[in-house]
Amino acid sequence: MAGIIEPRVLKGFRDFLPTQESQRKGIETILVRTFESFGFVPIDTPIIEYTEVLLGKGGGDTDKQIYRFRDHGDRDVALRYDLTVPFARFMAAHAAELYTPFKRYHIAKVFRGENTQRGRYREFTQCDFDIVGADSASADFEILETLYRSFLALDVSGISIHLSHRGVLNQLLAGMEAGGRSAEILRIVDKLAKIGAAEVRSLLEQIVGAEHAGLILEFIQPEQDFESTLSKMVRLSGGESDGSRRLSEILLMVRELGIESSFVLDPSITRGLDYYTGIVYEAFLSELPDIGAVGAGGRYDNLASLYTKLELPGVGCSIGLDRLTAALEELGRVPAADPGVQVLVLRLDDDLVPYYHALAGRVRAAGFSCEVYPERKKLAAQFAFGDKKSARVAVICGENERAGGTVGIKDLATRQSYDGLTIEAAIEQIGRIL
Amino acid sequence: MAGIIEPRVLKGFRDFLPTQESQRKGIETILVRTFESFGFVPIDTPIIEYTEVLLGKGGGDTDKQIYRFRDHGDRDVALRYDLTVPFARFMAAHAAELYTPFKRYHIAKVFRGENTQRGRYREFTQCDFDIVGADSASADFEILETLYRSFLALDVSGISIHLSHRGVLNQLLAGMEAGGRSAEILRIVDKLAKIGAAEVRSLLEQIVGAEHAGLILEFIQPEQDFESTLSKMVRLSGGESDGSRRLSEILLMVRELGIESSFVLDPSITRGLDYYTGIVYEAFLSELPDIGAVGAGGRYDNLASLYTKLELPGVGCSIGLDRLTAALEELGRVPAADPGVQVLVLRLDDDLVPYYHALAGRVRAAGFSCEVYPERKKLAAQFAFGDKKSARVAVICGENERAGGTVGIKDLATRQSYDGLTIEAAIEQIGRIL
Repeated sequence: MAGIIEPRVLKGFRDFLPTQESQRKGIETILVRTFESFGFVPIDTPIIEYTEVLLGKGGGDTDKQIYRFRDHGDRDVALRYDLTVPFARFMAAHAAELYTPFKRYHIAKVFRGENTQRGRYREFTQCDFDIVGADSASADFEILETLYRSFLALDVSGISIHLSHRGVLNQLLAGMEAGGRSAEILRIVDKLAKIGAAEVRSLLEQIVGAEHAGLILEFIQPEQDFESTLSKMVRLSGGESDGSRRLSEILLMVRELGIESSFVLDPSITRGLDYYTGIVYEAFLSELPDIGAVGAGGRYDNLASLYTKLELPGVGCSIGLDRLTAALEELGRVPAADPGVQVLVLRLDDDLVPYYHALAGRVRAAGFSCEVYPERKKLAAQFAFGDKKSARVAVICGENERAGGTVGIKDLATRQSYDGLTIEAAIEQIGRIL
Repeated sequence: MAGIIEPRVLKGFRDFLPTQESQRKGIETILVRTFESFGFVPIDTPIIEYTEVLLGKGGGDTDKQIYRFRDHGDRDVALRYDLTVPFARFMAAHAAELYTPFKRYHIAKVFRGENTQRGRYREFTQCDFDIVGADSASADFEILETLYRSFLALDVSGISIHLSHRGVLNQLLAGMEAGGRSAEILRIVDKLAKIGAAEVRSLLEQIVGAEHAGLILEFIQPEQDFESTLSKMVRLSGGESDGSRRLSEILLMVRELGIESSFVLDPSITRGLDYYTGIVYEAFLSELPDIGAVGAGGRYDNLASLYTKLELPGVGCSIGLDRLTAALEELGRVPAADPGVQVLVLRLDDDLVPYYHALAGRVRAAGFSCEVYPERKKLAAQFAFGDKKSARVAVICGENERAGGTVGIKDLATRQSYDGLTIEAAIEQIGRIL
């Protein structure tokens, strides 16, 4: 006989037990409801794509982390590592069937073979929503508001969205003739929270010299409110620009909706990735600042330029379901989930099993979940099973009850029993209990 | 400038546009509701696993079809090709945290690099539900009834579940001393619908001779009803057995529930795969017999024996979402799905954009989905967009309305307009329209 194979999963991958899976589904349901309330519509794309499609614009990190292999037809294929690149390919492929502005959401698994330290997984779920085909403050704001309302819907009130605009920082850098090294500088600035101001200064000095490094550090420091930070950004970057005007418009909207206190203009936010061209933002939970951003995104000039000559400006957001779930767990705000069954029909008499299944059907038809205990076991074992499944009511029926057309039911929480009920009366009583 | 990358997907893979994706989600929701009404609980497992775990018991076909590669740590890994093997590994890994009988469902994508002819996909979605840790007619029946009710819930009434029991056929084969070649014989019998009786006879004759081939063909022919087929099976196989008794018990249950007409005892059903040991069944739609089985499964003695010494008898079912969706499309029974938005706030005046977003928030707070048209465009373009998104109501607000605290709304179906409404009155009117 062959040995036992160890039932292990790969590092960075996880099983989800029923309670966890129900909780995740509960969070997803709340997000979907919020996204749909803003008019976002669902799409799906394949998990495996041509590597060429996924890596077209790939940076070094992505290349190394992507799961890539040759398929049965010796094609160079890979697993998607985000939902943005497949969406770009999707828009290019289906432009003729779609309309713009197109607002999609997509909740799905993505894969990155990265270091699994610090609660990172190699298989994780992203919840993305984007507006493509519109370049306006209104579209930017709708993404930000959808993110904000998503957290309110999850019963998380202390949310802080740190927002900036790539264009204003770029104007500052152009003014100091450091525009050619802006990607590098953005990446250093992006590390501010992680490595601290002194280290950022020292790295910047090596690129732009002490004076300009000081100016950049002054620029990225938020002032006491949105408006004064914006004034400083305009002043230091050499005057108003499309970027600063966009931020002003967004400020008017968060004020009009009375949600200004949740939006922080924070010029140190750059988002490391190269493709953003407009607003960039990260969302933090006030109660859990150390957990990092629970949602982030920004505006990109032309989503699908790798795949089409159509111009498709867009703005989007990605919420990481795994980190979000961990955060909600820590806050005690995970949606209640107790997967199981409401009503358990006990098996007292083997000859009555067909009748038990008919009874269970009556209970289900009344709108309650119900199952028949499937084996001949002692009552103690059946009650223990009911407990595991969080059943609230047991249905009890022996030969006498069947002959009389009645059943007994037991409220498993209060231990109260109701005997000799007609089936209709039993179902009514179940309704009162549940 | 680099050339354009063709935005193609791999053969056997598909994008889902919003309407398709909404329809699929609608079908999934109905299945989930049915599964949960029977007390099944959700789980999830990784898409990538150790190849050793997935192929432990692998047959030749699976080996060839599996997507297999070396990951970044040079581990031999593969994508799951069904949801049963990962479930077996899951049960072995989590036995201590779970309870039995354990009833799980799992709706997820699986991957097989097989021939894509005849509407088969390489990435497809399975909807599985199983009961593990109980070996009884009651558990078998609950799986069958869940399958049957799933189709009723999908508004498909003409469902026919063809059922048999591996043990009875095996007893027949043992009697003719062909037990050693039973796997081969089961596979031939399984092809009856595909290759016809003459071809099956000829293949069987090469293995067991003409007389026994004739006996097998007589055995696998259904009689006019469940009971007479069962009598014949018992007679030809040499008397009652655990298998025939199990079928009798199931007959009592389908009769008790008044659903006998949807269950066909069909001894030609064997299910090709080796691991079934008890009942086996396939579900067909009376209106679409040619589409093949839309759900199938059976009982296995010991689900997780590769990974644990715990005994875990089980019975399960798998519904293929892709074929099911195709069938529902052909029958015109796909759940209605028109993803879009209910209410569109038109953009008449750029200065009012913040106010439009506040209005949209009021509409959403009243429970309706709502979005603001995000760009400065002519009204005709905005109405065309509303049409694409199936918006039913437009909200119209210029400077005068804003100053007066009113809005106009337009029913986009009837073309009727309602002007000068307070915002509360407008929301009430929207409620009447929707």
